[in-house]
Amino acid sequence: MSKDKFALGIDFGTESGRVVLIRVRDGEEVASSLVAYPDGVIDEKLPGGPRLEPDWALQNPRDYLLVVEKGIPKALRAAKVKAEDVIGVGTDFTASSPLPAQRDGTPLCFLPDLRKRPHAWVKLWKHHAAQPEANRINEVGRERNEDFIQVYGGKYSSEWFFSKLLQVLEEDDEVYDATDRFIEAADWIVWQLTGQEKRNTCTAGYKAMWVKGKGFPSGEFFRALHPRLETVIEQKVGTAFYPLGQKAGGLTASWARRTGLKEGTPVSIGNVDAHVAVPACTVTQPGSLVMIMGTSICHMVLGTHRQMVEGMCGTVEDGIVPGLWGYEAGQSAVGDIFAWFFEHGVPNYVHRDARKLKIPFHVALEKRAATLRPGESGLVALDWWNGNRSILVDVDLTGMLLGMRLATRAEEIFRALIEATAFGTRMIVAAFESKGIAVKELVACGGLPEKNRLLMQIFADVTGREIKLAKPLQTCSALGSAMHGAVAAGKAAGGYNSVVEAAEHMAHVQKLTYRPRPENHAVYNRLFAEYKALHDHFGRGANDVMKRLKALQREVGMQ
Amino acid sequence: MSKDKFALGIDFGTESGRVVLIRVRDGEEVASSLVAYPDGVIDEKLPGGPRLEPDWALQNPRDYLLVVEKGIPKALRAAKVKAEDVIGVGTDFTASSPLPAQRDGTPLCFLPDLRKRPHAWVKLWKHHAAQPEANRINEVGRERNEDFIQVYGGKYSSEWFFSKLLQVLEEDDEVYDATDRFIEAADWIVWQLTGQEKRNTCTAGYKAMWVKGKGFPSGEFFRALHPRLETVIEQKVGTAFYPLGQKAGGLTASWARRTGLKEGTPVSIGNVDAHVAVPACTVTQPGSLVMIMGTSICHMVLGTHRQMVEGMCGTVEDGIVPGLWGYEAGQSAVGDIFAWFFEHGVPNYVHRDARKLKIPFHVALEKRAATLRPGESGLVALDWWNGNRSILVDVDLTGMLLGMRLATRAEEIFRALIEATAFGTRMIVAAFESKGIAVKELVACGGLPEKNRLLMQIFADVTGREIKLAKPLQTCSALGSAMHGAVAAGKAAGGYNSVVEAAEHMAHVQKLTYRPRPENHAVYNRLFAEYKALHDHFGRGANDVMKRLKALQREVGMQ
Repeated sequence: MSKDKFALGIDFGTESGRVVLIRVRDGEEVASSLVAYPDGVIDEKLPGGPRLEPDWALQNPRDYLLVVEKGIPKALRAAKVKAEDVIGVGTDFTASSPLPAQRDGTPLCFLPDLRKRPHAWVKLWKHHAAQPEANRINEVGRERNEDFIQVYGGKYSSEWFFSKLLQVLEEDDEVYDATDRFIEAADWIVWQLTGQEKRNTCTAGYKAMWVKGKGFPSGEFFRALHPRLETVIEQKVGTAFYPLGQKAGGLTASWARRTGLKEGTPVSIGNVDAHVAVPACTVTQPGSLVMIMGTSICHMVLGTHRQMVEGMCGTVEDGIVPGLWGYEAGQSAVGDIFAWFFEHGVPNYVHRDARKLKIPFHVALEKRAATLRPGESGLVALDWWNGNRSILVDVDLTGMLLGMRLATRAEEIFRALIEATAFGTRMIVAAFESKGIAVKELVACGGLPEKNRLLMQIFADVTGREIKLAKPLQTCSALGSAMHGAVAAGKAAGGYNSVVEAAEHMAHVQKLTYRPRPENHAVYNRLFAEYKALHDHFGRGANDVMKRLKALQREVGMQ
Repeated sequence: MSKDKFALGIDFGTESGRVVLIRVRDGEEVASSLVAYPDGVIDEKLPGGPRLEPDWALQNPRDYLLVVEKGIPKALRAAKVKAEDVIGVGTDFTASSPLPAQRDGTPLCFLPDLRKRPHAWVKLWKHHAAQPEANRINEVGRERNEDFIQVYGGKYSSEWFFSKLLQVLEEDDEVYDATDRFIEAADWIVWQLTGQEKRNTCTAGYKAMWVKGKGFPSGEFFRALHPRLETVIEQKVGTAFYPLGQKAGGLTASWARRTGLKEGTPVSIGNVDAHVAVPACTVTQPGSLVMIMGTSICHMVLGTHRQMVEGMCGTVEDGIVPGLWGYEAGQSAVGDIFAWFFEHGVPNYVHRDARKLKIPFHVALEKRAATLRPGESGLVALDWWNGNRSILVDVDLTGMLLGMRLATRAEEIFRALIEATAFGTRMIVAAFESKGIAVKELVACGGLPEKNRLLMQIFADVTGREIKLAKPLQTCSALGSAMHGAVAAGKAAGGYNSVVEAAEHMAHVQKLTYRPRPENHAVYNRLFAEYKALHDHFGRGANDVMKRLKALQREVGMQ
């Protein structure tokens, strides 16, 4: 098969980066290599440096370079693919994970005199220390009735680009002054590989207030935030943004040497891990909701026009697939809630069961939960263990469980938690459909759908929609990146002219699907009505007990 | 000390009977013996007979006789007390636990041709199969605006006398026809010992609609319930009721022989286990709330006049101490909730802790919970795992837990459950005080206060009231019975003229008390406000989700 061409996809995650080598013709993964970040998530102390405050989460950009340098040669060797048969490279990243850099792209944390300054490092997506800055941004944004307030469902997050940028300025103006470029790691890695600073529309649109055809908020807005921010866009961010799938440039000679690829190999514009997964799940048209299911769920759907849907994380034209509006919603804890229950809520009898059956205890728990019928436990929960992202956008909401009796068993609680996360997804589906954005089917990828058949069936039964599974499930972001690499290469080079075309050939779903059972769906309609009433009662201000308890908790914690 | 006189107290419980021998002078317990009931709680099948339906709970009256026959001689021997120095005997019983008997007192279940009939046996207090009959009683009672509806806080229970009597008539009219006397076990045992059928005002008032000076509801009411009940009072129940502490009669020659006591030893009128504990806790005046704390809590307080307090189990003149109104309230699950959590909610890390520290796991859990400060967990719960007895009187309410985050730990949930039961008691205290019935201090007895220091301190902190502990804690009902035996004997025989006088000498509290900590009470005032808002929201009809979930559960269970 000497005529086969290949594309490389690199998915930069939270703890590691994954490189996949994909056959362009049919999307077959011919090699995959995982490279762990030596410094991982830096949330206690800087390497060789000072301790960090709570809620900080940084990364070392050197780790990203290591993924490229080690992962690509390893994948090429494993598949015995020659450099000349690799037609393109695509990358995706966690977001928003920005870093400050010099004019030539050197991260400030690489400079000896700044490496002990926390603000010189990459602020990882889950860096949560910029909440005061986010509050200030929302306050000023609402006062000025800025467009971004609506784009982000009413709230700009502490996790996002300008919250983190403002935190640098507020807390370390020397680092701020030394920053020539404040840039998403997604764009920085592309700059490294190609020598071109070409930023992508996806992170700009979802994380940085950028709107196609309008650009950023005005200098007056930024001045209102902080006098020194007035010209930040021109000076440190830039105004040119490039659509997904476009070629950013060719691989530099230096990186060709370090990776074994050909100099000039096309590299696509950077992308975001969740968003790049959508076409890899076969979804390039409206009607299908992609769920990336893991510790949390990211929900993405395409629309033909802009609609204000409650509680979106963002609504961005060309943000996922060119020519369509990409809607992003999410649940802030799903797998995390089950992990919490595994750690804090599983009693002895489940462990005994597991030992007897020689299976992992969480499998024993799932087996028990699977024997229950909808409504049998008498329980209903609100899945807000980590707040509510969509549709309420409120981090101060907390979990609730209702209906316990003396006969209530652990597997009933576990099932109620699964059901609650499914109800949370149904709220999001309902929010989309209430604005005319169709959700006819669900397509799942990520780590959760792999083994959790009960979970997937409950999601189908609760939403009343068929759920398809992406193939592959867990490396769909990397596949999506490779697809974008093939588009950057273009048809003439053996790739594709568009993401839609690439998806037609390279993206697949599994034969296994989960279809809703009508009798279960009927009972879940009744339980969802209860969930919704509790959701609205505790989530929309009728009783703000959750917020008051959290405030009291903070107050007591400070004494 | 040959001049010392003694009184015997017999406490007939759910699984066993306890006999104590008490020195009349100072209440010192000189001997105690426990006799388990051979047939225990009969809830699956009759001894040698048919299987029972769910919710049934019966007892064999022969077991009660065995307690007397074995327990008294054993106690006398253990203390080396002579029969002539035992001046009186008192008894107390679970209630309402009625049985059908012949005119001479023979239980119908002793008759060979009726012993395979479930309705011929004692219906134990926790026999719950008479709910349809209770519903009918409440329906007719409300239609006719009967006094008893108010006396029992709006609802007559399926656990009580006439619900059980009506069930006999509805389901086995041959047993009903063969019943000459339908009688509380509390009164039946006194009849056995003395040959006198003299019924007590306490069970009559709290469980059987009897009101001092008025008697029972009219024959019209009973006819409205069932045509054949019109004359049930005259024919099977009787109209004479005797106050607590009065002598019912002297021990018969036969029972003197079987126990080793003197013939004619005074036996007091029968009593109820919870109510007889009140003077044994030193409480004979208004102002002190007695809490019998175990799987559930029974709350009793004395008042100088009748008040309609929300959610009372009963309000009976002379029902606890002659001359005062006895108010009874309760929480239907307290220790049961903690037992539920021990079984269903304790994760591995607590068990590991316990093994490391070589302590029981529930002690390890309590140690962890004790390090938390009020408000620190951010949790609040509704303690309705077994419904709500007072003040809502609603068995269809269920438990709730709110405020969970990914960092929530098992000990925080455990502490929230303890706090919820304390808030439940505070609701009851507030209901009393809202009607001018003072609760200045709490006096605790029962199994829970013995070792659970954290629980007791939280009850003090939440209620803002000092809690005294009875001495003894766990045998206070038996002590109370002995006190009533001493009163039945009278002053001339070396006893006392009244329960108040007996309590002055025979009842004591411990030196250890729990005093509220003002800083904790202040935080708990804020948490109690949250509890109360949730209590009223879910308990008073704003959102009947708990009832709907329970109904759905039944519906699903029947499919």
